[in-house]
Amino acid sequence: MSPPPARAGRLKARPLPLDTFRENVVVLARNNAVLRPERLVGARRLEVKARGLTILAIPMIADDPDLLAADEVGLPLPAFRRLGVGPGDYVEIAPAPPPKSLDAVRAKIRGETLTAQMMAEVVADLVSHRVSDMEIAAFLIACASFMTAEETLALTEAMVSVGTRLSWGERTVVDKHSIGGIPGNRTSLIVAPIIAAHGLLIPKTSSRAITSPSGTADTMEVLARVALGEEEMRDVVERCGGCIVWGGRVNLSPADDVLISVERPLGIDTPEQMVASILSKKASAGSSHLVIDMPVGPSAKIRDPLAALRLRKLFEYVASRLGISVEVLATDGSRPVGRGVGPVLESRDVLAVLDNDPAAPRDLLDKSVMLAGRLLEIDPAVRGGRGEERARELVSSGAARRKLDQIVEAQGPSPISSQLGELTHEITAPRPGRIAAIDCLRIAAVARLAGAPTDPGAGLLLLKNVGDEVRAGDPLYRIHGQEPSEFGFAIDAAQDASGIVLAAS
Amino acid sequence: MSPPPARAGRLKARPLPLDTFRENVVVLARNNAVLRPERLVGARRLEVKARGLTILAIPMIADDPDLLAADEVGLPLPAFRRLGVGPGDYVEIAPAPPPKSLDAVRAKIRGETLTAQMMAEVVADLVSHRVSDMEIAAFLIACASFMTAEETLALTEAMVSVGTRLSWGERTVVDKHSIGGIPGNRTSLIVAPIIAAHGLLIPKTSSRAITSPSGTADTMEVLARVALGEEEMRDVVERCGGCIVWGGRVNLSPADDVLISVERPLGIDTPEQMVASILSKKASAGSSHLVIDMPVGPSAKIRDPLAALRLRKLFEYVASRLGISVEVLATDGSRPVGRGVGPVLESRDVLAVLDNDPAAPRDLLDKSVMLAGRLLEIDPAVRGGRGEERARELVSSGAARRKLDQIVEAQGPSPISSQLGELTHEITAPRPGRIAAIDCLRIAAVARLAGAPTDPGAGLLLLKNVGDEVRAGDPLYRIHGQEPSEFGFAIDAAQDASGIVLAAS
Repeated sequence: MSPPPARAGRLKARPLPLDTFRENVVVLARNNAVLRPERLVGARRLEVKARGLTILAIPMIADDPDLLAADEVGLPLPAFRRLGVGPGDYVEIAPAPPPKSLDAVRAKIRGETLTAQMMAEVVADLVSHRVSDMEIAAFLIACASFMTAEETLALTEAMVSVGTRLSWGERTVVDKHSIGGIPGNRTSLIVAPIIAAHGLLIPKTSSRAITSPSGTADTMEVLARVALGEEEMRDVVERCGGCIVWGGRVNLSPADDVLISVERPLGIDTPEQMVASILSKKASAGSSHLVIDMPVGPSAKIRDPLAALRLRKLFEYVASRLGISVEVLATDGSRPVGRGVGPVLESRDVLAVLDNDPAAPRDLLDKSVMLAGRLLEIDPAVRGGRGEERARELVSSGAARRKLDQIVEAQGPSPISSQLGELTHEITAPRPGRIAAIDCLRIAAVARLAGAPTDPGAGLLLLKNVGDEVRAGDPLYRIHGQEPSEFGFAIDAAQDASGIVLAAS
Repeated sequence: MSPPPARAGRLKARPLPLDTFRENVVVLARNNAVLRPERLVGARRLEVKARGLTILAIPMIADDPDLLAADEVGLPLPAFRRLGVGPGDYVEIAPAPPPKSLDAVRAKIRGETLTAQMMAEVVADLVSHRVSDMEIAAFLIACASFMTAEETLALTEAMVSVGTRLSWGERTVVDKHSIGGIPGNRTSLIVAPIIAAHGLLIPKTSSRAITSPSGTADTMEVLARVALGEEEMRDVVERCGGCIVWGGRVNLSPADDVLISVERPLGIDTPEQMVASILSKKASAGSSHLVIDMPVGPSAKIRDPLAALRLRKLFEYVASRLGISVEVLATDGSRPVGRGVGPVLESRDVLAVLDNDPAAPRDLLDKSVMLAGRLLEIDPAVRGGRGEERARELVSSGAARRKLDQIVEAQGPSPISSQLGELTHEITAPRPGRIAAIDCLRIAAVARLAGAPTDPGAGLLLLKNVGDEVRAGDPLYRIHGQEPSEFGFAIDAAQDASGIVLAAS
């Protein structure tokens, strides 16, 4: 039984010009009429209620009667707006009861297996922000040490059930997704136009970068607006047969966004969470057929064949229960794909490939048509083994490029600059040799330090690839930046360790 | 390599009349001269430096130029004072680099064994508040799933090394500690006077309640001041041969306080954390001989003989490496000890025992003299097996009571009320029967709902014990409260489930 909240009462709402980012905060006078300050010290969160709406907020105390009177509660503007109150309106304040799902979190911590019902409670509390980051971290680490395939399925289903679900009638809806970790791997911007040009439906939602130098949504944003709502997205898909939008406005699997915000800083990237995250988004987006790009390599997320096999099996198990036909492809994760790393540079690689530019990065083209080919073979009209050929035709004929232009036109003009960062510096080979390997993690770190993706024009351009012979002093890559100090940090980091591994040739 | 902080710069300090509890917060104008707002969204914490001092703080943004100008940074008063600056003094602001120990935390998450060096890094970052609650939770849960005895030792040693260490010369320093979980188990207030009356040194530091209705420090505070600093504590011990103070002012093992603040809400209570917590406090307090009270019972922390054996072995291993002689005693954890639960009620039980009051709870006396007896046998002058007899003599002669009075006098008068809560309600037997068991968790929850320990006079008084025969309507316990609403919640909870298990007699 949860204890009932102690001493609920009413205070007058007062807007505070504060932005508290992810956390809701409320400010109470130390002598406030509702809650004694010593009650607040141990309080988890407060419930703030008005007009049937409830938000949860962390309490702070004001010690100045001019700032806040005893009968007032200070609400930062986003919380104030969300409650839909006016200044001076009464709101109810009470300590929030402990969330129900904490019992399930504690059971998982003790090593128990959770039922579908318990997973649903956890996910419901996640999306209503009833559990703290601390509790989410505890849940995730407990799951990382032991989680059954059934629990992964239950988690995924619960995540799907709390967000928007798109439906596209009876039609085949295809999608592709990469598990990430490889800089420059912007195949979605080539695959989606190919698929749509062929006539299959590909309503692609994508994410922004969190720890990488660019997400698919960041690179697409260099070309077009990506923050479309559900109705706008539907409209684009009806007109073009496809889209490439940011998923954040569409509210697909919002529980995933909450989990990711804790997983990333902790570096949690377990197979179970990857599967729940990706498949909850895809099931919510209404996908019926999915190709997963799973790079395998020494600095990739998946580093050996056994881990690759395990992840593939888990994807297949959960997807089949969700009614999604999935194909998981192990790809080369030993080096970046394409030459540019960072939003503007990556968008240029994409356009060069679709323009059949002879200087376009061959590896990006080859990988994109391979992935697109697998999806095209879903079409009964495309004969087995002919998908890749068909994909290549759609690029060389210019049909894919025209489709991208149509999608860009339909999504609307980009709100950000497509200028390349004007500060440049070349990192050179310290000695002659052959490039034996490229460290994906290091390349991503340098591009991010240079300012990507916050500065879309920041990043780096690879001038050599694995297998190339170089002389001492030959440029290996060029760093682009916009902010002098950040640019300097990126150069320092690259000089410290470039990420390019030279072997004696 | 940690990336260097981006765009450090100087802003003028402005005090804000805010109390942000555990977290340091700084407020910056959206158009502040140092950090662009989009840089703050993803920022973990900011470093705020002045006069060689650095604090870490969570950023918030002010959107009102009247509240904060572009060249100002708002500092809540505790942070302002800690930095020792005046209004308008310049402080340096920069994004905090990721803490070094996160690599160790991630390694533990991956299931690796940490070296002593890595444990030391984690503990150093814990006490300087460089890691978030989320990261601490991740570390603790990863440790809960797998932790070697060597890691437990390394963690304990690291925790000892970052706090104050008390030293008492060459003397034998004895202590006792309970692993907790049993309501009313206030033996320390009886054991410490017995030991000091005999002439052994017992400088006892104790904790306040976190999830229980009263800690030893809370109950002692009904009788005397407990928030003594190190010098005051030394003075009391020199004069009386013992003390019973709150450990919080003495800064013993501050890392333990940080870990506890995350463990308790998550309900983490692993043997490894219990051992590191207790032994780091005892080693810091300079204890040479220690008796551990380990209650074993169906609603206690340790529920079966195997768990008891495992915990005892771990205590013995770590204590021996720290040079502490430890004896772990399995005690009856099947029911509360004494009759009162809550600070004032427990203090009355203690005084009744020391006063040889015929109505004093026999179980509290018996358990206290048993524990004290084990410690007294450390004295070569006390013959093997005669410790308990000696302890009982010191109580019956009044020597222990006189020693407590001397300690109370030396520590100074209590700052809190010793009034018993005036609102009372008796919970009665719903039917005739024999009391088969008392649920310690439930009794603690009811006493806490009634207001203990925030209201020292709140709590409950057990009127029957295990084995007693009752008729329908016989009172089982009396709830005491001070606040009508909280008192009501406690009654509701007790009527819902009293915690007293009746069997047909």
